[in-house]
Amino acid sequence: MRIEVLNTGSELLLGTRLNTHGQWMGQELFKLGLRIQRLVTVPDGDAIREALADAVRKADVVLVTGGLGPTSDDITREAAAAVAGIELIEDEAALRSLEAFFAKRGKAMAPDNRKQAQVPVGAEVLPNPNGTAPGIYIPPRLNGAGNCAIFLLPGPPRELYPLWQNEVVPKLRALAGGAAAEGMLQLTLAGVGESDLHQEIDADLARISGLEVGYCARLSEVDVRLIGTPAAIEAGRARVMQSFATHCFSEAGESLESVVVQGLAARGLTLATAESCTGGLIANRLTDVPGASAVLTHGWVTYANAAKASELGVSATDLETHGAVSEEVARQMAEGALRESGADAAISVTGIAGPTGGTDAKPVGTVFIGLARRGGETLVQRQLHVRDRAGFKRSVSQAVLDLIRRELLG
Amino acid sequence: MRIEVLNTGSELLLGTRLNTHGQWMGQELFKLGLRIQRLVTVPDGDAIREALADAVRKADVVLVTGGLGPTSDDITREAAAAVAGIELIEDEAALRSLEAFFAKRGKAMAPDNRKQAQVPVGAEVLPNPNGTAPGIYIPPRLNGAGNCAIFLLPGPPRELYPLWQNEVVPKLRALAGGAAAEGMLQLTLAGVGESDLHQEIDADLARISGLEVGYCARLSEVDVRLIGTPAAIEAGRARVMQSFATHCFSEAGESLESVVVQGLAARGLTLATAESCTGGLIANRLTDVPGASAVLTHGWVTYANAAKASELGVSATDLETHGAVSEEVARQMAEGALRESGADAAISVTGIAGPTGGTDAKPVGTVFIGLARRGGETLVQRQLHVRDRAGFKRSVSQAVLDLIRRELLG
Repeated sequence: MRIEVLNTGSELLLGTRLNTHGQWMGQELFKLGLRIQRLVTVPDGDAIREALADAVRKADVVLVTGGLGPTSDDITREAAAAVAGIELIEDEAALRSLEAFFAKRGKAMAPDNRKQAQVPVGAEVLPNPNGTAPGIYIPPRLNGAGNCAIFLLPGPPRELYPLWQNEVVPKLRALAGGAAAEGMLQLTLAGVGESDLHQEIDADLARISGLEVGYCARLSEVDVRLIGTPAAIEAGRARVMQSFATHCFSEAGESLESVVVQGLAARGLTLATAESCTGGLIANRLTDVPGASAVLTHGWVTYANAAKASELGVSATDLETHGAVSEEVARQMAEGALRESGADAAISVTGIAGPTGGTDAKPVGTVFIGLARRGGETLVQRQLHVRDRAGFKRSVSQAVLDLIRRELLG
Repeated sequence: MRIEVLNTGSELLLGTRLNTHGQWMGQELFKLGLRIQRLVTVPDGDAIREALADAVRKADVVLVTGGLGPTSDDITREAAAAVAGIELIEDEAALRSLEAFFAKRGKAMAPDNRKQAQVPVGAEVLPNPNGTAPGIYIPPRLNGAGNCAIFLLPGPPRELYPLWQNEVVPKLRALAGGAAAEGMLQLTLAGVGESDLHQEIDADLARISGLEVGYCARLSEVDVRLIGTPAAIEAGRARVMQSFATHCFSEAGESLESVVVQGLAARGLTLATAESCTGGLIANRLTDVPGASAVLTHGWVTYANAAKASELGVSATDLETHGAVSEEVARQMAEGALRESGADAAISVTGIAGPTGGTDAKPVGTVFIGLARRGGETLVQRQLHVRDRAGFKRSVSQAVLDLIRRELLG
């Protein structure tokens, strides 16, 4: 069943409003085993008619959002009636419901609102208790333009979401009939690039029958999406894990910081952070997770050398001899943070974000990451993250969180 | 000039990823006096070819994002060549640039990446220093399918945004020719809501002839866009400033953290941060600005009460008597950070991010913000920021940065 979505609204194309319908409807449809084949966004006004006519030619189901309001640029109702070749008439029940909506709020209905009770002859009104615009369902048999079902839905999420569950979902299930629901599993991996992944496993995954594979790379993490039958997904998962089990930090779309905070909390472990070049980003990511206060006790942003010495007890001589970006300083920062905080573990990071400050021996992007543990050896890693300033910070923070995950939750 | 945008990526339609390109490109195009007439999102794979062919038939400029990666479902390059009727060849310079990208990171290039150096014959390579996929520009004269310019752009924002500014904007200006280029001024304001702004000044702005006004609200800041003749823009600017001069922190699209860091640096002032509920976000935002090391010397994330006491010298009795979220604790955190750091000024923040922890006297969202200055009075403000966790942190960080701006740069 081919599904197209048509989102209308000039604000979505002028950039004054972020369109979240695509993501939300994609998730909701996937729960029903359905997918969006194309999503089209057009401004208010005449473009709606053209886009709707185009969608109806190609799809089995078209879901339209927006343009059902009372103002002159709200023409979705008219466009749908024209495309389907049906006349609009005023629906008695819809009009009464509109009047009741205003009465309940102690307001008189403005004349402009009356057009919101107009419905193509024979179409079904989908009640919208949270707004003035009812939804409209034009079944395939009514649609003169082809064998396509058309849903006209209100744009505001707080109106759309309940109407979707109550009215749209049962109709979509009926339209889809016996179409079997596929499953989906999304693995998220850190510390490996999309191309490494592809090179290592893609050919094997392609050989698994009934499995659809997708990749989505973000900065320092990659999603591998496996869609298909339960058996195909399990075979795909096994192949990914065979090569990359230690890289996979989530099978449920969680963020790395969330995995780290929940993992530490579950083990009753506390953590301190001592950051130089990441400038507080690691503490910030950890504290984005609800419950972080049970885990993160102390954080330092020791940007200046004096701060590294006075707050974390880094040796002034070592700062002088080895430089702030060095294994010795990373080690002393982590151990100082552990000592000072009394936490179970402490991480440190010191590096050269650039654009200036690099040398031949330590080029821009060089970073030392330390991990000190109560009663354990301190670990220090040297890494290279060549990116712009914000990318460097993000990429290094990802490496640090992943180190915590591997070493403390492994 | 009719502009269509084509966003590719199955993740955008499966709902695993929110599509922010529409909003961002809408804003960027608007700055050039241009608008998106249609935005189409399709999954990876064959749908790209069909959607691109359709867009090329209708538009003067088609901007495609995504599908330039090294994997088998990345077929934007092939689709564009097919639609334009041009062959793909390996571009020497693009290949060298790819190899250099990996070499700089101390990695060998995987064979799969080689296809990223393929370019339609005669098309222009748009360098992408932040990723492996270069952009591609197919000018109208090369395009066998019609008189339409095609841009192929990388999907990840970190790669797209700089490439857009460096490569796409000049070409769009040239393509738009005399059609574009009304003047535009964008004022960015903190500490005032879009509806206050609208209520107070919109009617007056509407009376200025030749002026088009747009608002774009983000979390805790609002852009007012004035488009028109120089005289109209100046009249609009004067009206905004008459009511909101103290709220306006930029007329050039700078971030608030950038204004703060540059302003402090210009005055030779140093700063320390003592954060509880914002968890490092303020330090993180400050250190996103190049040159932050001249300004931010020390940062603390004193999430635990013990950390507030041991690191910043907050009185254990006051923590007990007044609670961690109190005027007294905010004051002592700021003064402790000032004393400990030796900086010229120090800010502190302590509050209740929620969802739990609120009381009748101090509901969720309550926050105390402190600002201590060498040789000056310490200032403490109580504020209420009712939002979800991430929104609370962002909104509070904005209030703190704006307080620094007003008090230290005023």
